[in-house]
Parts: sequence; C-alpha cells; structure tokens
Amino acid sequence: MNPKAEIIAIGDELLIGHTLDSNSKWLAEMLAGIGVEVVRMSIIPDQIDAIIRALRESSKRASLITVTGGLGPTLDDLTKQAFKDYFKVELKTDETVLNDIKGFFTKRDLEMISSNERQADVPANCRVIRNSQGTAPGMWFDEDDIVYISMPGVPFEMKPMFEESVLQKIIERFDTRKIHHRKVQTAGIAESFLAESLSEFEDKLPDTIRLAYLPRLGQVTIRLTATENDGTDVISLLETQVEKLRNIIPEHIFGFGDDSLEKVIGDMLREKNLTLSTAESCTGGFISHLITSIPGSSDYYSGSIISYKDTVKINQLGVKSETLNAHGEVSEETVVEMAQGAMSSLHSDFSIAVSGIAGPGGEQPGKPVGTVWIAIGAKNKIHAELHHFNLNRTQNIELTAVTALNMLRAVLLHL
Amino acid sequence: MNPKAEIIAIGDELLIGHTLDSNSKWLAEMLAGIGVEVVRMSIIPDQIDAIIRALRESSKRASLITVTGGLGPTLDDLTKQAFKDYFKVELKTDETVLNDIKGFFTKRDLEMISSNERQADVPANCRVIRNSQGTAPGMWFDEDDIVYISMPGVPFEMKPMFEESVLQKIIERFDTRKIHHRKVQTAGIAESFLAESLSEFEDKLPDTIRLAYLPRLGQVTIRLTATENDGTDVISLLETQVEKLRNIIPEHIFGFGDDSLEKVIGDMLREKNLTLSTAESCTGGFISHLITSIPGSSDYYSGSIISYKDTVKINQLGVKSETLNAHGEVSEETVVEMAQGAMSSLHSDFSIAVSGIAGPGGEQPGKPVGTVWIAIGAKNKIHAELHHFNLNRTQNIELTAVTALNMLRAVLLHL
Repeated sequence: MNPKAEIIAIGDELLIGHTLDSNSKWLAEMLAGIGVEVVRMSIIPDQIDAIIRALRESSKRASLITVTGGLGPTLDDLTKQAFKDYFKVELKTDETVLNDIKGFFTKRDLEMISSNERQADVPANCRVIRNSQGTAPGMWFDEDDIVYISMPGVPFEMKPMFEESVLQKIIERFDTRKIHHRKVQTAGIAESFLAESLSEFEDKLPDTIRLAYLPRLGQVTIRLTATENDGTDVISLLETQVEKLRNIIPEHIFGFGDDSLEKVIGDMLREKNLTLSTAESCTGGFISHLITSIPGSSDYYSGSIISYKDTVKINQLGVKSETLNAHGEVSEETVVEMAQGAMSSLHSDFSIAVSGIAGPGGEQPGKPVGTVWIAIGAKNKIHAELHHFNLNRTQNIELTAVTALNMLRAVLLHL
Repeated sequence: MNPKAEIIAIGDELLIGHTLDSNSKWLAEMLAGIGVEVVRMSIIPDQIDAIIRALRESSKRASLITVTGGLGPTLDDLTKQAFKDYFKVELKTDETVLNDIKGFFTKRDLEMISSNERQADVPANCRVIRNSQGTAPGMWFDEDDIVYISMPGVPFEMKPMFEESVLQKIIERFDTRKIHHRKVQTAGIAESFLAESLSEFEDKLPDTIRLAYLPRLGQVTIRLTATENDGTDVISLLETQVEKLRNIIPEHIFGFGDDSLEKVIGDMLREKNLTLSTAESCTGGFISHLITSIPGSSDYYSGSIISYKDTVKINQLGVKSETLNAHGEVSEETVVEMAQGAMSSLHSDFSIAVSGIAGPGGEQPGKPVGTVWIAIGAKNKIHAELHHFNLNRTQNIELTAVTALNMLRAVLLHL
C-alpha cells in the first residue's frame, strides 16, 4: 500500500537561511518515483524538544517519516538523543558501525577521537544503516506501523545511503505500487512554446497518464507519469506516448531519461570515432567541465584552451592580432579563429569556441553584458551564432554552455 | 520584542521534488538579519484544508507567519480562499489593486481575463501589499496579536515585495532587536578535528554567543552568533571571539563572511599584481571554472590548458614524452612539467597543475581511483603533493580543486 510520508530536515543553519536544504527536495523526488505521497516537508531546530514534537506531529499524518541532520560528532548534533527520548529506549554500541568508523579513519591515515567513537552508540530499537561515505550511521525505526528513517544531513553521505540501502527497504516494507515515469529531454525551445506545440498531444493523453514540464536553463524536461493499476500495461502506454512526442518535436528532443547534452554528444562522438576540443573565454572552463563530467570522455575529448587573456588567444589559439584589433574579442571573426585554433592546436575533428561578456561588468559599445558569440568548428566549415543572454553571471555562463552543446549536437546530427 | 516566526511555502510541485523552494531560505535569512527567530519552515500542498491546518498549528508557536505561493490566477491557487475560510470573512474588491492589475496588462499590450480581475478580490480583514512585478497582491493580516503575511510564490515577485514593503512593516510592528553573525572559513581540517582543537574555546564562550560548524567538501565554516541585549556591545564581543580563533587555528582560516577560496586567492593575486594559470587533466576545467566564477578574475587569471589527452600535454604544455613514458601521466614528474608548461605557455607568475584519476574507471598499477598529483608552480620553485581521494567522480574533482586552491593560498601566504 502506498504510504503517506513526511520529510523533516534538522538544522539551525537552515532556519537562519545560511544553508539551503537540498536533501528534502531530493528525497521528495525519490519518494515520488516509487509512489509515496509526501504530504509535508518541515525544517526544525537542533533542539531535542523540537525534534520530538515534530516526530509526534508527523506520526499523526504519515506512516513514513524521513529525518536528515543532527547526526554529526559535535555538541549540536542531537537527533540520536531525541529518538532515544521519543522512543524511551537506551543507547547500545553497534560493533559493526564501530568497526566501520575505525576503518574510515585508518583508511585516511587519521586518528579517531572519542566523539567519533560515540557515533557507534545507537538507540536499542533501531536497525543501523551503514554509512559508506562517513562516520554517522543511519537509523531505521519501525514502531506502531510507522517507519522513521534517520540519515546524515551531509548530502554526499545521505544520498548514497538512501540509494544503496534505504530505497529498497522502503519498497519492500510498504510493497509500494509502482509509478512509472518517462522523461523526454528537450533543448532550444522555451516552456510556453513547447506547451503550445504539445497542447493537442496533452488533450489526447489517456486519463492514466499525466504530463509535467520541468524547465531548467535552456532546457525543458517533459515528464510522463503513469501508475500501475491491476492489469493495465502502463509501460507500453507510456512508450506509445513517447513515440508520439518524437514525431511532433523531433528537432528539440535530444535524449531520454537522465540524458544530459554532454552525455549525448559524447555518445555521438564516440560512436563515429570523432574527437572534440574547446576554446573558452567567458565560460572559463565550464563547458570543458561539463564534457569531462562524463566518465569515459577521454575517448573523444582532447582538451581545452581557456583563453582568458588576449595573449593566450594569440599564442595558443593562433587568433590574429589584426583580427582582435579590428573586431575585438567578442566578435564573429575572433570566435571563428578561436574555433579553428582549437582544432589545430588540440588536434580534434570538432571544436566549440565561445567569446562573450558574462557580466556583471565588462560591457563594450554595442555589446551589452550577455553578448556571446558561439562557434562550432568542423574540418570544412565553422558555424557561428550571436546570442544575447539576460541573466546573472552564473546563469549566462550556464546558458552559453547549454546553447553551445546543443549547437554541436545539431552539427553532429547532420553529418 | 523579537517575535518567533514560521515560514510556510505552498506548492504540490515542491512536495514531489520538482521545484526547489528557494523562497523560504531567502526569507529565513532576511528575518534572521532583523532578529526574528524562525522556529520552523514548512512546505504544504495546494489544498485549502492543508493550508488552514498549517496556519492553525503555526499560530500556536509563532507570532509572525509568512506564506508564499498559491496566489496565481489558475484553479490550483487556493491561498486566498484558505485565508478567507481561516478568518471567516468575506472577499472585497480592492480598487487600487484592480487598477494595478489593469495597468499591468495595458503596459504589456495584453488583454486581461476575468481570472486576473478576481486577483483584486481580497479577504476583508487584510491590508493589501502592492505587487510591482506581477498581478497578485500580497496580503497582511494582523489578528489576535499574530501577523500573517501572504506573498506570491514567484521569487522575482516576492523578493521585491518583501524588500520594498514588508520588511519595514515587520520591523515597525515588532520593534525587533538585531541578531549578529560572524562566519570564519576554514579549509584543510576535518570537522571533528576542528571541534577538538576548539573545545576549550567553545567552553569559554560567553553565554550570549553560540557556535555552529557548517561542513562542506574539504572546508568547514565556523559560525558565531550573538543577539543584541540592552546595552551589551555584541559586535565587539563577536570580534573578540573571532580574534581568538585567528590565534588558535591561524593556518586553517582562509577567510571570513562568505569568502570562498577562489575569491581569497584572487584578492591575494590582485593585491600583489601577480597572475595565475592552470593546467588540468582529471579536473577537466573545474578549477578554471571556479577561478573565473569570481567577477574581475581577468585581472589576475590568464587562462588554462585542459590537457585531457597526452598529446596536448606534450604539444601545449611542453611535457617531455620521455617523462610520460618513464613515469606515466599521473606522476610527480609529469605534474611538475605541466606546472612549468602552464606558466610559460600562458605567461603567468603562478600555476596550478593537476594530474590524476577521478574515477570511476582508469586505475593503473599502484595508482587506484582517486590518486591525484597536485603541483603549485612558482617562478623559482614547484611544490607538488600526492593525494588519495576516496569519493565519487564529482566529489573527487571538487575535493581536488579545493585542495589545490588551498595549496596555492599557502604558497601565496609565504611570499
């Protein structure tokens, strides 16, 4: 049966707005994916009585309660004490966890201190969940038909713990019905235009399938959702709808599931045995970072020249000083020479070159902040486009990268 | 008197983890700055009864309740109805708001529809807060000594509304005292070790000052907090404690407030008129991206060579093929030559060079995943260190970058 769930995050640093609670959103998404309905998300203080009060209230509304935070080795980490008092049990030392903690420090050639040792003491009624990334164990409580799951607040400890151990336990414990999603990744079309192109498609969707638009910078994920319901083959139903989408907007769809542009262009390059390099100025290495975030990118990526100063454009990329003098850094002529220079200096079949003004300062006559030239270099042809982005520095850089990768994709598609 | 406050965000898209609630964090920071203690933050569904229940519960714990979301013109925007039912009042048309809405559409040459007109109908007991960026007015309720503030969920409508009108009203209504924070940024020491080094310091802290550890990858932020209290000069008190910290752990403190490593090394370079370049392989441009995320970095940063393939190391960085053959890419000899090559190819006073194995694959005999050589190049000396990182690809890359920037900082400190 599909349970109702509440998500609790503990942390004073959250309540004073210092730290963003990203864990709760992530957990909400994970739980939605297995058919669990989240009815409330709360952020509460590092105080034992506040934690106990929140557990008590949530237990009236939900049968699954996740709690992140408050499991560290310092004095303001009170979650364990709160659970001990809430369930009125004693603490006991878990030997497996104690060995895990000792091993964590040995592996890093560090000494363990007593506050770390105490992290192996857990409420007697819990099942420990081992922490592969840190010292604090997670805790699973199952009392009065309500499951409470306590996990570390540090995202890179919590997420692997949830994905590797907790998710499956929840599926088994609650025998959740499956919610099925199909994600279709699009780039280069704004959400409102996409929705207009798909309004007829949306009207004709079967009742069992819901559509959601999940916009990001320069991209929109279309998500189709269907819930299993005795007998209906929802997966075929979803696949049919996805095929329809491929026929309505073929040019904007670049991938499915969790495909990213950088992964997709990587697959295209690898499949055709082609190589890529980049020449970046205003994006400062961000495009290179995205490309190399894909494991195995060394199969097709030779490298990049980040030409933040003009001398680097001249010396490393072979941009002519006459070109810079006549047209300036942020020009079609310069970005085209950067693209050519990347291919020849870095010995690649293709290149992405970018020259622009990310902001906040740096505008020039006729070139406001957000003016960006993007070029895609190929052996026999360089394709350059001028864009005007209107956001803050970080967003302009990200939008430039997404646009550039999508331009490369279009070139690779038409080989 | 400083009120206790609760922050509520309404939205189904938040509860399924599609959209991140950034409004609540922002409001929490704004309220903390004027001495308002936020005791809970909640996310609730777009349902009238859920909204009413949340208001009722919060009114028992807080005298200031902010609510964002649910004020749009579509069918799932139910906040106004919920307040009407909660206070048991009727709706009335606010003429000023109606004119604002008409003007909003006229200015954009658009036609208004009836659902937009209805946005001018508000509960009879509220004071409207005009919306300079959109059509939905905010609402201020003051009943039974509790203030409820309803604002749009769209950040670029809510933030100006709060900053221009609401913040001042709160200060006047509650005659608030100020809370003061000081943040001390450290790198290169684990949280538990830091807490142990500072345990005596923590014991000796005045009662009015609280300390919190906010860990991230490779860094820990120490936060000291004090509240103004008739006559005590809390700012001096805080500054005194910060000075004490500087004397206890001088080598680990790299900055204050919201300083990042990349900002701090940027300031150090600019101040001494020195320049920096990078040569990256396994970090793929991430270090360059961090350095260039700082506005004005073109003052001290010349650029980078991302040498993903060996040929790029040889051709662009002047690494000798004999060195690569004898010692391999991931070696002290290679990373030292990369650091030298960066300084000479990119004409900089200093360089950061990195060569390693980010994972998940790529291990070599004697060099497991996570083996990373980092070199800091200076005119007369190259300092290289071997590190073993044990996390996933993304984290290994981030931790390498943080470690490298901190190593550069140490070199710059001892000039």
